Amino acid sequence: MIVIIQCRDQVGLVAAISGELTHAKLNIISMDEYVDKANNRFFVRLDVEQTINKQQLEFELKQLLPDDAVITINPVPEKKVVVLVTKEYHCLADILVRNYFKTLSATVQAVIGNHTTLQDICVRFDIPFHYISHEQESKQHFENAIAQTIKGYNPDYVVLAKFMRILSPTFVAQFTMRLINIHHSFLPAFVGASPYRQAYERGVKLIGATAHFVTNDLDEGPIIAQQTIPVNHTFTTTDMVKAGREIETAVLAKALQLVFDDRVFVYKNKTVVFE
Amino acid sequence: MIVIIQCRDQVGLVAAISGELTHAKLNIISMDEYVDKANNRFFVRLDVEQTINKQQLEFELKQLLPDDAVITINPVPEKKVVVLVTKEYHCLADILVRNYFKTLSATVQAVIGNHTTLQDICVRFDIPFHYISHEQESKQHFENAIAQTIKGYNPDYVVLAKFMRILSPTFVAQFTMRLINIHHSFLPAFVGASPYRQAYERGVKLIGATAHFVTNDLDEGPIIAQQTIPVNHTFTTTDMVKAGREIETAVLAKALQLVFDDRVFVYKNKTVVFE
Amino acid sequence: MIVIIQCRDQVGLVAAISGELTHAKLNIISMDEYVDKANNRFFVRLDVEQTINKQQLEFELKQLLPDDAVITINPVPEKKVVVLVTKEYHCLADILVRNYFKTLSATVQAVIGNHTTLQDICVRFDIPFHYISHEQESKQHFENAIAQTIKGYNPDYVVLAKFMRILSPTFVAQFTMRLINIHHSFLPAFVGASPYRQAYERGVKLIGATAHFVTNDLDEGPIIAQQTIPVNHTFTTTDMVKAGREIETAVLAKALQLVFDDRVFVYKNKTVVFE
Amino acid sequence: MIVIIQCRDQVGLVAAISGELTHAKLNIISMDEYVDKANNRFFVRLDVEQTINKQQLEFELKQLLPDDAVITINPVPEKKVVVLVTKEYHCLADILVRNYFKTLSATVQAVIGNHTTLQDICVRFDIPFHYISHEQESKQHFENAIAQTIKGYNPDYVVLAKFMRILSPTFVAQFTMRLINIHHSFLPAFVGASPYRQAYERGVKLIGATAHFVTNDLDEGPIIAQQTIPVNHTFTTTDMVKAGREIETAVLAKALQLVFDDRVFVYKNKTVVFE
Repeated sequence: MIVIIQCRDQVGLVAAISGELTHAKLNIISMDEYVDKANNRFFVRLDVEQTINKQQLEFELKQLLPDDAVITINPVPEKKVVVLVTKEYHCLADILVRNYFKTLSATVQAVIGNHTTLQDICVRFDIPFHYISHEQESKQHFENAIAQTIKGYNPDYVVLAKFMRILSPTFVAQFTMRLINIHHSFLPAFVGASPYRQAYERGVKLIGATAHFVTNDLDEGPIIAQQTIPVNHTFTTTDMVKAGREIETAVLAKALQLVFDDRVFVYKNKTVVFE
Repeated sequence: MIVIIQCRDQVGLVAAISGELTHAKLNIISMDEYVDKANNRFFVRLDVEQTINKQQLEFELKQLLPDDAVITINPVPEKKVVVLVTKEYHCLADILVRNYFKTLSATVQAVIGNHTTLQDICVRFDIPFHYISHEQESKQHFENAIAQTIKGYNPDYVVLAKFMRILSPTFVAQFTMRLINIHHSFLPAFVGASPYRQAYERGVKLIGATAHFVTNDLDEGPIIAQQTIPVNHTFTTTDMVKAGREIETAVLAKALQLVFDDRVFVYKNKTVVFE
Repeated sequence: MIVIIQCRDQVGLVAAISGELTHAKLNIISMDEYVDKANNRFFVRLDVEQTINKQQLEFELKQLLPDDAVITINPVPEKKVVVLVTKEYHCLADILVRNYFKTLSATVQAVIGNHTTLQDICVRFDIPFHYISHEQESKQHFENAIAQTIKGYNPDYVVLAKFMRILSPTFVAQFTMRLINIHHSFLPAFVGASPYRQAYERGVKLIGATAHFVTNDLDEGPIIAQQTIPVNHTFTTTDMVKAGREIETAVLAKALQLVFDDRVFVYKNKTVVFE
Repeated sequence: MIVIIQCRDQVGLVAAISGELTHAKLNIISMDEYVDKANNRFFVRLDVEQTINKQQLEFELKQLLPDDAVITINPVPEKKVVVLVTKEYHCLADILVRNYFKTLSATVQAVIGNHTTLQDICVRFDIPFHYISHEQESKQHFENAIAQTIKGYNPDYVVLAKFMRILSPTFVAQFTMRLINIHHSFLPAFVGASPYRQAYERGVKLIGATAHFVTNDLDEGPIIAQQTIPVNHTFTTTDMVKAGREIETAVLAKALQLVFDDRVFVYKNKTVVFE
């Protein structure tokens, strides 16, 4: 059983929490704790051997903790996700394969694409595919159609797996801290369009990818995971795109694993990640 | 103030320890905890804001913990070390530079070499250099001379910074878990002599280095840190040696930092490293 | 058009080859050249802008080169491969996805499994799956059945994508330098069975994977690609297996890309890889 | 003997160059060649076994190559360098150690500091140290004093080893493509001041360092080498600075090795690096 707590810091929190668990005869298998001194914020993630009455434990903990404490006991072990795509296959295929072999720590409910390119692969894996073209009356219509389709599934998270349309603040506000994006650069380098072209033109020796929560500031949300790989002068923009596929797939897979295993806290614009 | 505890595992240890610290009005800045389930072993490292009477806290903790508990409160913050070398300069020079600029978390008391090659660099940094040739009556004489010289300094650790003579169990037994070696391969690959030649002949695509505590079984002691770097078909044995220098220097530096900051526990033949 | 040459080294080979190409009005886009001094062996890979009459160019080059020269002009651009599997899905799924999206630089003709676990995923991608159980009269029967099935497809390469049965020298001899294996360790560390268990017991701080050609000496064939990733004391054997999946998939994918793009030469027990 | 050529591309360059070398009875040990298609630019670096009359070979090659060809035969094997520093020791100490042990492929002639912090380490290695304070009448006076001191040594390269003053275009213009800087971030992320603070505030999961030639556009010159290392939420700005030291030292060391071994070409704002 996982117990997650976030609250303002004060002396004795670890003692209070672990004392309560011991009192409830619960055995702590592992415990990750972090205090953000700059923000006076306390984060803890406990893996507890036994399962117990949630209401009771939450009630007891509330007595001991600051009144702003957010306590999550035994979060949904198998998250439900909807995936948004455009034409590029690599991140989606990786997710579908892990979903099929049950190693995603989540269940893919549906895929929404603004092109039909990736419909067939979804069909092969028996995943519903919704084609919603961006060539609609307006961007608002387009986003409404997507939002309604998503809400029909009521997912825990929405994954932008190389979804190449910019989403409006109105859309984003409907899924706060539930939208996860893979950005094809080592943010904050090469923000915006065509990062591989920018990287080529700048002559960098590394390219990277960033998985992050989506907020209103495009490409500025809390970062979950990042990686880089070496490139050199022989790489054309096309070669960088190709090499980038591998790193994008790996970074998104890692970020999803962390989020789905309840290892990622968000506070202000940063994440605390207990690996 | 650092508090380190190792003991057999049982329910309630975290609660007991953190409760005692809270009771003593001590604020936990960070806490790393690990339970080795296979060996039923508990390890914890606490960084506590305040400094307190050691005897009192140790006494209180002993009441709460299993009788096999090893408790270290406020370990020597600045370790004393003696370094053993042969002819290769890279690890020693890195240690001398960090020592000089006070970023080693330790003080180098002396260097012992079985060649005089590195005497001059030590002199330049005002570090005593002891030349003890291995061309003595016997290996036993050689090792006795080294052991006596080391004991004259009473160091916390002895660092084998590319010391190229094999040490006998009798020697090793005098400095249990205080001898740290850098081995020029990714152990357990290429155990023994000339690992870069072995790597070249095998045609590997990565070479590595391993920092470990020295035990009686040569190259078999608990591993503290390891890294690898890519090589390719164009690397001769000499090129691998040259590339290896960089990785050996980096791995030993990292391992020493971890040990000197009291982040490394040893149990049986493995380490627990709280980074 | 790709031109590949391997022969014993002598003065003037680059001039002779590039002179002949210039004479034939061919433009060299890129050229990778390597001389193995220890073995007096010359390797070159040229990417030429134009396509030309193969027989004529090969005839001309033969006049200029040592009589042991192996010349390959315009090798099959789309290799044919048969994949052997047992129960683990990760390498196979990655290959099937790349095959489906035409980014494998090869065509998967069929999959052979000694269990039926991976039949369904093959069916979903319209790839023939042959179930050949190892529980036959004898190992010889088992291997004969596999060899016959492979030969029915006449593939360029056979990929062992986590095929967990040891193949006999008799079998291997039928597919010299056409068998590519992914080994779940950083060879030559942890040769043999259960490398992750061995890694766990030794307490290493990195685990790795190795893609190599299969020869009669088990796990001793020429290495194509290797990578490592960090692990720590919290990793159980199961955790290492899980982390290993990612690195195995990545290393095999990279090795296949290199081989299928005609970038890998083999001489004696080592590879020359032009990346 | 090293031969380096850069010129506009045309058919037959490799044949012409290698033909001339063969004609001169020179044996090519290794050859790196690259054509920048976007800019129609040809680069080649040859390592030739024999040494030969430079004037004669240069004359012969000029007949065969485009008139814009820049030919360098047998460049100075041991470069002369002047190092500029402020207070941080890590890059300078690394350079001084390699210089002392003759593994720098260059000779340090002098160090110039705008503080006296690093004078003592230079004295210990018998390297002249010039203290030139930036608290002068004007920035122009400051830069003039530095430029005059540098010119007194007539170095091949000037290394900015954590020199923390911004240099004017007038200064830079006096040492075109001879100024090498280490920037404490993965450019182009976190351009400008306090990159580690910026990295901390953005919550990135990697930090990096960039070695580059200095041009008039601050932090925008051709990149020679880059690396990144993982960080996480527990890293304060101070921790990042500390971790950054290691990567800055490694990246600058690598870049200097490449430049001093004549492996780096510059064309427009990018480098071609033959590793």
